[in-house]
Amino acid sequence: MIVTTVSVFVDKRHIDDFIRATVENHQNSIAEPGNLRFDVLQSLENPAEFTLYEAYISDEAAAAHKDTAHYRAWRDMVAPWMTKPREGLAHKVIAPADSSRW
Amino acid sequence: MIVTTVSVFVDKRHIDDFIRATVENHQNSIAEPGNLRFDVLQSLENPAEFTLYEAYISDEAAAAHKDTAHYRAWRDMVAPWMTKPREGLAHKVIAPADSSRW
Repeated sequence: MIVTTVSVFVDKRHIDDFIRATVENHQNSIAEPGNLRFDVLQSLENPAEFTLYEAYISDEAAAAHKDTAHYRAWRDMVAPWMTKPREGLAHKVIAPADSSRW
Repeated sequence: MIVTTVSVFVDKRHIDDFIRATVENHQNSIAEPGNLRFDVLQSLENPAEFTLYEAYISDEAAAAHKDTAHYRAWRDMVAPWMTKPREGLAHKVIAPADSSRW
């Protein structure tokens, strides 16, 4: 399993646009065969800061996400709304270690 | 729902100790009535960097976590192993919006 946390800072004028596009990406991403979670979070302290929590069963499944039409459409749509490049950090899962608990 | 992401940097000599203590905290935390998830992740780039992903059904449930004996025991045990103070960020959940999907 692999979890990527993605940090995104959005222009305040496009917060609603970003949420709309990212919820659609969430819906499509959780339907991918190797996806375990695709959570979309908004910082309480700064409503322009978002975190995506993307859990996949394998490195291959995580890589396959970036080849999907919905990922590419999302990436191109939201890029102009970001105030800086998004940052992704990849993680190994320590717990829960059982993939059925994801 | 509320999700807190906690970033922890651990002295390399105590990585195994930290994992052991935090897996125990994970087991106890997921048994709390208001807990939705309590994931423990290790950065692929830096094995001394950990992220906790703590999802609770309400602010009250998240606050109650800090009153548990297992949280207090974990906090006191791991504090001397950290190379800097841990940082927690609280988030509103955008998706999945349905708590049954957590």
